[in-house]
Amino acid sequence: MRPSDRAPDQLRAVTLETGVNRYAEGSCLVGFGHTKVLVTASVEESLPGWLRGKGQGWVTAEYGMLPRATHTRGRREAASGKQSGRTQEIQRLIGRSMRAVVDLKALGERQVVLDCDVIQADGGTRTAAITGAWVAMASAFAYLRAEGVIKADPIMDQVAAVSCGVFADTPVLDLDYEEDSSAEADSNFVLTGSGQIVEIQATGEKRGFTRSEFDRLFQLAETGCAQLFALQRAALAR
Amino acid sequence: MRPSDRAPDQLRAVTLETGVNRYAEGSCLVGFGHTKVLVTASVEESLPGWLRGKGQGWVTAEYGMLPRATHTRGRREAASGKQSGRTQEIQRLIGRSMRAVVDLKALGERQVVLDCDVIQADGGTRTAAITGAWVAMASAFAYLRAEGVIKADPIMDQVAAVSCGVFADTPVLDLDYEEDSSAEADSNFVLTGSGQIVEIQATGEKRGFTRSEFDRLFQLAETGCAQLFALQRAALAR
Amino acid sequence: MRPSDRAPDQLRAVTLETGVNRYAEGSCLVGFGHTKVLVTASVEESLPGWLRGKGQGWVTAEYGMLPRATHTRGRREAASGKQSGRTQEIQRLIGRSMRAVVDLKALGERQVVLDCDVIQADGGTRTAAITGAWVAMASAFAYLRAEGVIKADPIMDQVAAVSCGVFADTPVLDLDYEEDSSAEADSNFVLTGSGQIVEIQATGEKRGFTRSEFDRLFQLAETGCAQLFALQRAALAR
Amino acid sequence: MRPSDRAPDQLRAVTLETGVNRYAEGSCLVGFGHTKVLVTASVEESLPGWLRGKGQGWVTAEYGMLPRATHTRGRREAASGKQSGRTQEIQRLIGRSMRAVVDLKALGERQVVLDCDVIQADGGTRTAAITGAWVAMASAFAYLRAEGVIKADPIMDQVAAVSCGVFADTPVLDLDYEEDSSAEADSNFVLTGSGQIVEIQATGEKRGFTRSEFDRLFQLAETGCAQLFALQRAALAR
Amino acid sequence: MRPSDRAPDQLRAVTLETGVNRYAEGSCLVGFGHTKVLVTASVEESLPGWLRGKGQGWVTAEYGMLPRATHTRGRREAASGKQSGRTQEIQRLIGRSMRAVVDLKALGERQVVLDCDVIQADGGTRTAAITGAWVAMASAFAYLRAEGVIKADPIMDQVAAVSCGVFADTPVLDLDYEEDSSAEADSNFVLTGSGQIVEIQATGEKRGFTRSEFDRLFQLAETGCAQLFALQRAALAR
Amino acid sequence: MRPSDRAPDQLRAVTLETGVNRYAEGSCLVGFGHTKVLVTASVEESLPGWLRGKGQGWVTAEYGMLPRATHTRGRREAASGKQSGRTQEIQRLIGRSMRAVVDLKALGERQVVLDCDVIQADGGTRTAAITGAWVAMASAFAYLRAEGVIKADPIMDQVAAVSCGVFADTPVLDLDYEEDSSAEADSNFVLTGSGQIVEIQATGEKRGFTRSEFDRLFQLAETGCAQLFALQRAALAR
Repeated sequence: MRPSDRAPDQLRAVTLETGVNRYAEGSCLVGFGHTKVLVTASVEESLPGWLRGKGQGWVTAEYGMLPRATHTRGRREAASGKQSGRTQEIQRLIGRSMRAVVDLKALGERQVVLDCDVIQADGGTRTAAITGAWVAMASAFAYLRAEGVIKADPIMDQVAAVSCGVFADTPVLDLDYEEDSSAEADSNFVLTGSGQIVEIQATGEKRGFTRSEFDRLFQLAETGCAQLFALQRAALAR
Repeated sequence: MRPSDRAPDQLRAVTLETGVNRYAEGSCLVGFGHTKVLVTASVEESLPGWLRGKGQGWVTAEYGMLPRATHTRGRREAASGKQSGRTQEIQRLIGRSMRAVVDLKALGERQVVLDCDVIQADGGTRTAAITGAWVAMASAFAYLRAEGVIKADPIMDQVAAVSCGVFADTPVLDLDYEEDSSAEADSNFVLTGSGQIVEIQATGEKRGFTRSEFDRLFQLAETGCAQLFALQRAALAR
Repeated sequence: MRPSDRAPDQLRAVTLETGVNRYAEGSCLVGFGHTKVLVTASVEESLPGWLRGKGQGWVTAEYGMLPRATHTRGRREAASGKQSGRTQEIQRLIGRSMRAVVDLKALGERQVVLDCDVIQADGGTRTAAITGAWVAMASAFAYLRAEGVIKADPIMDQVAAVSCGVFADTPVLDLDYEEDSSAEADSNFVLTGSGQIVEIQATGEKRGFTRSEFDRLFQLAETGCAQLFALQRAALAR
Repeated sequence: MRPSDRAPDQLRAVTLETGVNRYAEGSCLVGFGHTKVLVTASVEESLPGWLRGKGQGWVTAEYGMLPRATHTRGRREAASGKQSGRTQEIQRLIGRSMRAVVDLKALGERQVVLDCDVIQADGGTRTAAITGAWVAMASAFAYLRAEGVIKADPIMDQVAAVSCGVFADTPVLDLDYEEDSSAEADSNFVLTGSGQIVEIQATGEKRGFTRSEFDRLFQLAETGCAQLFALQRAALAR
Repeated sequence: MRPSDRAPDQLRAVTLETGVNRYAEGSCLVGFGHTKVLVTASVEESLPGWLRGKGQGWVTAEYGMLPRATHTRGRREAASGKQSGRTQEIQRLIGRSMRAVVDLKALGERQVVLDCDVIQADGGTRTAAITGAWVAMASAFAYLRAEGVIKADPIMDQVAAVSCGVFADTPVLDLDYEEDSSAEADSNFVLTGSGQIVEIQATGEKRGFTRSEFDRLFQLAETGCAQLFALQRAALAR
Repeated sequence: MRPSDRAPDQLRAVTLETGVNRYAEGSCLVGFGHTKVLVTASVEESLPGWLRGKGQGWVTAEYGMLPRATHTRGRREAASGKQSGRTQEIQRLIGRSMRAVVDLKALGERQVVLDCDVIQADGGTRTAAITGAWVAMASAFAYLRAEGVIKADPIMDQVAAVSCGVFADTPVLDLDYEEDSSAEADSNFVLTGSGQIVEIQATGEKRGFTRSEFDRLFQLAETGCAQLFALQRAALAR
């Protein structure tokens, strides 16, 4: 049995609240159970130097965790003077995932920065961040269209992410921290609304895992993402 | 008239919500109008090296601002690799303010870290942080006493803070961002429940200001803090 | 057709040369075609603080690229003052991959550091590094056993890695730089000698990719790693 | 009684020597008793990017302390790789204080950098620095006018600073290090020649302090600054 | 007797292999006994800002040591976040030495960066780097002339370097690590093919040394460099 | 003719003033013409970790330049966040020079830090720093002996330094900034009172230089140092 009494293929309660920041062009507070991530989408009318004059825009992400988001306080990255390898790995993943479903030409020569700040962490912060970042980004694009800044919607597809893992030798969906810290294998799947793969990261934590275990994780991810896509659409419709 | 239509001696709507973080020993989400600061109090059973073995504890603070807390996105300090002078100045002020009302011997050889993260900024983030940090800290001490970790309450007095300024040649209480950015003078007062001064910072921004203007700012601060003390007590009583 | 005229399931010429550093306990110069990575295994009789006294050892990796390993000169990370996110991501991956096949208790309270320095880069540096790091590490363990420092071999299994991708809509094995820079999808598989998965990273670069494409990439990886395992054993046998 | 046998309202011997650096456009070696600060004013015909093309100049300050300015050697900030929060706080204060009395339009599109380096520290380094920086800056402006670079004097008023504190329950003027390290309250006042307030910083160090104590500190500061203004004028007249 | 059984005026076996990097405009793997340094010469069609538009080019060098180049593993400078004083001293020396024999006007407005990476270190890495850097640079210039990028050869003279020292009270040529670590005096001579001095660095390590010892070291260096010049010419001729 | 009208073998006016810092165990303000360096010797009863428990002490140096020591303002190293290669090269040289004449065993398990801060720079700051550092260090040892902290004087010999160069094709002693910036060759000699060489650094700046030019520079340095030794003894005798 899972510590949370969930069925193996059961997501935690997922919430997606838009309009939570007064200043950002788009924003979303995403909750996967006790994991809470605040995402803001900031539209900037400038581009990094290497992209200027190419007739296209850019989407990038930054990720951070408040020091006491976790069970014990972690060091503030601004105080230690650098972002950890884990932070950089996650923010690169979020950026790639968003760009996979955005038509950068339709965006025009501007940049969208997705700031994903973890308010509370109970496992799955990167997948929650991706799922919420898409909502914040879509809100920002809706705002840009309403303002007449862009004509066509640069969004080509939905994208969402979920973690799966092998816990107590059983493949399960959407690991919480307790499961994550003792799982045999851990994976993150980033999938599109049309069923394509954007990214798979799968790691044997305690032992290697088998091809058939991996196939079951994949199946769980598809099930979970289908629910997340519906929740994303509902959040934007509100 | 003030942009917000407030009377010169009128605070913004102030909210102090405790118990907002599942893991921290104490926490408080403080709002001064649109300014929102999340404060967590983390109790650590260790001390910085220079304080070990002296039979007393320590209280310190860290301050940060989410990149899109403000009207336009600011650079993430963890990404730029250092905390700005402003950040360091503010976190030193918060720490001093808390230590002014704590009996460090009664705390014992442990440290309380107050993380003050600005979720949304509309002026007065440092005074909101101080006002909320006291509530988070008091909650943490209540928890430590309930757990039997400490016997006596280390809190000796309340402490709260408010900004005042000269706006359009009129002394006013609790500046919002619009007022702050065009004020002739700006000040922050940190006062104790028993009416003592912990810290005064007053700066002529556009011009020097006079002794009589300063005296009026001081009076406004006393009025404002009296209301904040009542709100702090109410927040803890809930 | 592939730019290198290889068949879709054909590895580049792979070389694994041991004993290339006079001082290191183990070393391996690994070549995947024009990609050359020098790996040294350094055994240190000390552990990071958080691991001391736990009756086990540690294996970690560092990764670097000489500035002119690539077509155009890149900035020296020591001069820019920090390691890129990409560098950190890769060295974390190498470390996890090695630890997946090492019995850390059998290693005893000592650390093995695997330095993977890219002398020349033509795609697939991380997979070459993993494949060569295993050889360097195994050489170091053989040395430690010969010296009587450890009794049992801490190696539990082989581990190797290879990249696969979708190039010109065709799944192919072991991408070189030219293929990598225009591939639709890119993936890295880290597998063990006994057929288990240590890590999968798969990314849609130009478009999402399908489940059936992914399954073909997986199959190619299994084919490629089987050859790498044989080459690793041969290198150690020399 | 005060350790230095001074009366409560008595400044230390204050010296202001101009022309102490062969290359700087203006310079002043300021002494408040054993505290010695070397200030140079450097005029640069360029501006920080955010100020260019706005038809005005800028005045800024940097502050440093030689490692052995103090009783025990402190760490060199250039070696530790960053300026402390205290350093940044002080240099921001000096810059604000100077800008409060300078007509930046009259200065034209150029920048004055005031480098304040503490040669020996016996308390009150920031107030000595401000008092001397005004003299160095005024010297530089006199030089620019003599050279015909600027027409009108950008100086609108004098500015000076002094510390006051509550020592052994008595308000006293111009704390030295011995007083400062055991004072109940510490404050810095930055005032203009025409009697206006530029900045007040007041902190309860050992306990909060009262409104009437604060009023007495203010009065002492006004007395002290009156003497400093006369000394500044005399220094320039020489 | 020397630990390596060499005569006092005997160089180690010196090798200079060109064309060792597939991408660089020039390259040289230089060996002085067990010391191995890989040098690449990268030609960039851009200049540092302070040199632009002056009708001349620039030659600069960077130096690094692989962590396990040495008997015990050293810390990776990219990981520690800065280059040591020793590294900076050496790369400044290499750059000065190359510029001493290059006609920067003939080079045109482009930059040559010489990356000197120590693969294995047994003493004398800086002198090996200089000797090899000249070969890599000359190869790059030959390439530029063959491509028609430049007309005249910017090389005005050869330059090579060798260390000498007082070991066991005897002046000897080309110290290896064992000699270097117990030498009484250590020196590096950088000389030109036409017999001029580019740089001398001589240090008493255990004791001061005398004028006559110095004169003997100088003589040994002249002998050694004569052999190095012949080897450089032979390497380029191949 | 030299710009300063000095004879080729003539030093600038050299001053060595001791007792210039109230807190340091030893101090010296050294002037070589307009070059002014403030040296303090700080005695610390602790050692760097790698030297503890070896029955000997340590002498080290740090070097800095005030931003406006020079004709145009330079960047403050504490603000830029790192010490330049030049700074590190110089402070390593000063430390080596002092250790060459100190009996570290006689010093006992304590460290002397020589802070050399350039107040005004007109060429030759490193040689002035070495010459003054020996005086500050000797003063500190005299103090330690007077206090009974050490018995024997750890000083074994005098050490001083002077620059020489080839200016307008003439070898001259003690270059000032104007000469230094257009010299054909530049050298620094660090010699002991008993006539031994501690360090020689000689560089061809505009062209290589010849053996006979070098011999003449050496001779000038011996002449100059002889005068500096006499001035050092006189400074200590006062």
